[in-house]
Amino acid sequence: MSTTLPPAADRHFEDYPVGAVFDLGTFALSEDNIVAFAARYDPQAMHIDRNWAAQGLFGGVIASGWHTVAALMRLIVENFLPQRGLASPGVDELRWLLPVRPGEMLRVQVTVTEARRSRSRPDRGLVTSFVEVLNQCDEPVLTMRPMNFVRCRPESLASSG
Amino acid sequence: MSTTLPPAADRHFEDYPVGAVFDLGTFALSEDNIVAFAARYDPQAMHIDRNWAAQGLFGGVIASGWHTVAALMRLIVENFLPQRGLASPGVDELRWLLPVRPGEMLRVQVTVTEARRSRSRPDRGLVTSFVEVLNQCDEPVLTMRPMNFVRCRPESLASSG
Repeated sequence: MSTTLPPAADRHFEDYPVGAVFDLGTFALSEDNIVAFAARYDPQAMHIDRNWAAQGLFGGVIASGWHTVAALMRLIVENFLPQRGLASPGVDELRWLLPVRPGEMLRVQVTVTEARRSRSRPDRGLVTSFVEVLNQCDEPVLTMRPMNFVRCRPESLASSG
Repeated sequence: MSTTLPPAADRHFEDYPVGAVFDLGTFALSEDNIVAFAARYDPQAMHIDRNWAAQGLFGGVIASGWHTVAALMRLIVENFLPQRGLASPGVDELRWLLPVRPGEMLRVQVTVTEARRSRSRPDRGLVTSFVEVLNQCDEPVLTMRPMNFVRCRPESLASSG
């Protein structure tokens, strides 16, 4: 069952309990954008060479895995993270499970897997989550486990002091 | 000690022995590119809001971690992977260790940590590596452990058959 977060300006550590599931919305990548992103950052033939890719395993260009994850990040920023948040320490187990083709509608779901208040800096906590990008057949095309520091709600600081 | 790879068109699984170290070159991100990438893919204040960021912890905008990894990917494609290669299954332990500021010159070093020939598909092997992005003080700003399928050299297939 999906949970609703407060607006970005009011999201705090306490809004990310373990087990909470959030639907972050959908996105798609056009063929032109796939080729343009890859030409700049990931110029492999499978992403930029339309003629070569048409004869290959996937029947056309597929998105750079870094493009898929960048487009996904926008939904994470808008629909999951707090406004004016803190830098992330990293991501574990980033997996590209299926090719992403132009125009495929992808939806994003996030499950909180760990939420641990910081001991050294009690104004924040570390939220670890499992992110799934699913295609229209509900097959996962990308998964990852990002970590995010999130500030605690001010009243919870006062009550702990 | 750094090793030299063949040209991209001639790189094969046998060219990536465990322990080999490759220097992939350098890159830098301009402030305009940092803001433009983040405005599209990672619109967090620390990446796009110059005025707010100037008063913050980092004294100005810092690059989206996904921008740093995308720019790094270009050097991996050009100076590490084979031409017309295979799709990657994923990346482990992506870590953003230090902020990347506009204009910082970053260099990229890759160490092969595992090289395992596929049993189910003996025409290829899985190369796992440790990628480090280092600043001018030789401090790591980003590390990750990507996996890449790489085709074997044709003669090694013949001799194994």
